[in-house]
Amino acid sequence: MTVFSADEVEHLHRTALRVLAELGIKVLLPEARDLFRAAGARVKDDMVFLDAALVEEAVAKAPKAFTLHARAPLFDMTVDEHTVHFGAGAGCPNVTDLERGRRPGTLQAFRETTRLQQQFDIISKLTPSAEPQDSPVHIRHLETMEIMLLDSDKTPWIFSRGRGQVEDSFRCVALAKGLSDDAFCEGAHTFTVINTNSPRQLDKPMSQGIIDFARWNQVSVITPFCLAGAMAPITVAGALTLSHAEAMAGIALAQIVRPGAPVVYGAFSSNVDMKSGAPVFGTPEHLKANFGAGQLARHLGLPWRSAAGTAANLADSQAANETQLALWGALLGGANFIYHAAGWLEGGLTFSMEKFICDMEVLQTVAMALQGASASDDEIGFDSLAQVEPGGHFFDAPQTMERYKDAFYEPLVSDWSNYGQWTDAGAVPSEARATAIWKRALAEFAQPAMDPSCRAAVLDFIARRKAEGGAPLLD
Amino acid sequence: MTVFSADEVEHLHRTALRVLAELGIKVLLPEARDLFRAAGARVKDDMVFLDAALVEEAVAKAPKAFTLHARAPLFDMTVDEHTVHFGAGAGCPNVTDLERGRRPGTLQAFRETTRLQQQFDIISKLTPSAEPQDSPVHIRHLETMEIMLLDSDKTPWIFSRGRGQVEDSFRCVALAKGLSDDAFCEGAHTFTVINTNSPRQLDKPMSQGIIDFARWNQVSVITPFCLAGAMAPITVAGALTLSHAEAMAGIALAQIVRPGAPVVYGAFSSNVDMKSGAPVFGTPEHLKANFGAGQLARHLGLPWRSAAGTAANLADSQAANETQLALWGALLGGANFIYHAAGWLEGGLTFSMEKFICDMEVLQTVAMALQGASASDDEIGFDSLAQVEPGGHFFDAPQTMERYKDAFYEPLVSDWSNYGQWTDAGAVPSEARATAIWKRALAEFAQPAMDPSCRAAVLDFIARRKAEGGAPLLD
Repeated sequence: MTVFSADEVEHLHRTALRVLAELGIKVLLPEARDLFRAAGARVKDDMVFLDAALVEEAVAKAPKAFTLHARAPLFDMTVDEHTVHFGAGAGCPNVTDLERGRRPGTLQAFRETTRLQQQFDIISKLTPSAEPQDSPVHIRHLETMEIMLLDSDKTPWIFSRGRGQVEDSFRCVALAKGLSDDAFCEGAHTFTVINTNSPRQLDKPMSQGIIDFARWNQVSVITPFCLAGAMAPITVAGALTLSHAEAMAGIALAQIVRPGAPVVYGAFSSNVDMKSGAPVFGTPEHLKANFGAGQLARHLGLPWRSAAGTAANLADSQAANETQLALWGALLGGANFIYHAAGWLEGGLTFSMEKFICDMEVLQTVAMALQGASASDDEIGFDSLAQVEPGGHFFDAPQTMERYKDAFYEPLVSDWSNYGQWTDAGAVPSEARATAIWKRALAEFAQPAMDPSCRAAVLDFIARRKAEGGAPLLD
Repeated sequence: MTVFSADEVEHLHRTALRVLAELGIKVLLPEARDLFRAAGARVKDDMVFLDAALVEEAVAKAPKAFTLHARAPLFDMTVDEHTVHFGAGAGCPNVTDLERGRRPGTLQAFRETTRLQQQFDIISKLTPSAEPQDSPVHIRHLETMEIMLLDSDKTPWIFSRGRGQVEDSFRCVALAKGLSDDAFCEGAHTFTVINTNSPRQLDKPMSQGIIDFARWNQVSVITPFCLAGAMAPITVAGALTLSHAEAMAGIALAQIVRPGAPVVYGAFSSNVDMKSGAPVFGTPEHLKANFGAGQLARHLGLPWRSAAGTAANLADSQAANETQLALWGALLGGANFIYHAAGWLEGGLTFSMEKFICDMEVLQTVAMALQGASASDDEIGFDSLAQVEPGGHFFDAPQTMERYKDAFYEPLVSDWSNYGQWTDAGAVPSEARATAIWKRALAEFAQPAMDPSCRAAVLDFIARRKAEGGAPLLD
């Protein structure tokens, strides 16, 4: 799905390059400015001006496709223009469920949301759904890494909160796989999300994150969060121009550090409610921004990351509709990573366990629907058509009997009983039915198999680094 | 979106033709069998066998595009392969809302649901959302026509429940526009939905409906309701083959009666819950069937009708998600009419006033999102980008001030306030907020302007026909 003509895409791209060359981008980390300067950029105080050739040459070095290796080969991910991966809601300070209510995130909530992500195959890799505020900030990266690496064999996410924390985290991932630092750097094993501070600003931890992930050959998902009318122009075209400029600047930095470093072009542009300034999702403008961002990503030839989302305050119709509208915006925009596709509420302020389950149903349905169908003679079943009289039924036709067990998708939370049965069963809405489902998923959870020596090495490393005081946040 | 290769589409089409030629279709109305026989079909008892050439020649006479004329020119509809029209949930025996609960449909409910459809421009034409069971069957067509023609200037729907009722209804529509019978027959002013009795059966009222609508040059939307695993084979390909065969038989009958009669190719194929046999919607199979049905419609070159829907028993997340999944299935299948896109619950057994409002938000959002965007210099706003410092905001940028009033979609039922504000306001879910919205829409309703002599003519005709005893149902 597209919103711009080819000429318009080229014009947006050229204007974004003009933004970087003429207006520049503020880069707060001296090390990053030095790298840009050494690559030929003009630097004035903390402003970096990048000419079009520099940007385009650097961006051209980014790989069009790569593999993101999980601990379990089953969860290795091909990242390219042709695949789509769904991620759970990330970075939520609060969690909620119908039994315990809305509360600040804790390590226990982080553990539960990690286990839920592990239990559903439609989630390709881990995101930190709940922010564990009971874990001290200097060791939070270690405590969350322990949970991600022991409770899951999918690819873990690392927050770029300073070099010490990032390098500790890299070593945890390497140890979990029994890899030396050098062997680890030969492939992509983990990823981070870089949010620019729109408009036109890269802060210290984000700049350092790009540098460190590139140096270690790990994946930066470089995602301006350009909300039209707030941190970005009020138009879709303006917001995307800014987003495109910032994404290219980040990608250029990664490629300056290490040509060929794996990156994902990120674009998460929606709009704000002009009455309150709050971000909103699943709006017409959000969908259009997704269609346009996909065109810009394809213009660069890079895999791209988008996101679903909702501003709703509970898992109701609004939450379902906004999340799904945003999801289709991303899907039809051709996004390859779609984050915040499950469990996100309140524009990301809260992760809902019930919403996560309801969203699993949508993602599973979409994935199955996009698998195509066959029209072989056997599928069409002319003989089966001939066996059933006009006005009859196919309930016991031979073709039905052969296939009924797995012909159709089996629902997770949808209740297809009739009104009488549903009423007799207590008239429970889907959101409330979801409670039993996440509880069962957690009850049935078992840690995935792990090489005992790797497991011990991870735990030893984490214990040692905690004893040493962890690592500071970079502000 | 497609699920079949071009060869597979051709193979499905050929197999459907084989079904009509070799297995035949049971046609319960003698008049329809006579018409088929006169056109060259082989008829044996109540079975009609149509060879491929007869079907293809007849179907080729159907117009690829036509205009459906409303009483208000604003609501005239272009029906072709390139436009999409949304319809409300139709044919529901029950209605529900949060104030009055679930109850059988009445004339009052029919009036309210008609007025709601009139109030939202995203609904292109009327459908009979609630079945008014307090209206005697022999005059129900007159009492509903009075409501549709006086409370709305959009195109009304007529049920094919027998020639007497259909012709009464045609005359009502003609009188409402001040047209003679002859002038009425010069253009399309109303439509019916023809449901075959799958598998391979056309009952008496449906056959007669096709004949009468074709004779009067009005629109038949010929829609097999082929539920995989129940009235149709358990596979998507099998269900679509049957659906395609039945739709072509109905279209052929219309073209035999009057070459060039306006028809819409209908396909409403989903699957059943194999545990209960109940129809379900928004499933992967439903989406695939939509993608495939669109390919078959385009193979014939005809506008086509699909439907959204849900099996949920209340307007919860499940209802929202299933309806929207089904909606996107129809949209991506390229459907031109999408029925049951608002208000439908319980697989069509109940029309929900609140669900209607929540669905309005989705349809309005989709329609706006698909309008495209501009990337002119003015839209991009390079100057605006230059005016805002790095890390600043665009809330008071000149471009924002110029455009903020109508830059973004204004929500109908979505609440974008934050958690604290929302909690202070009573923590009301979207479904419950919708109650005030439909009540306001009904309170603000005013009958659209109507030529007084036309209005009097309609009322006189209806009063006379009621006094004469109305018209019988054809069983």
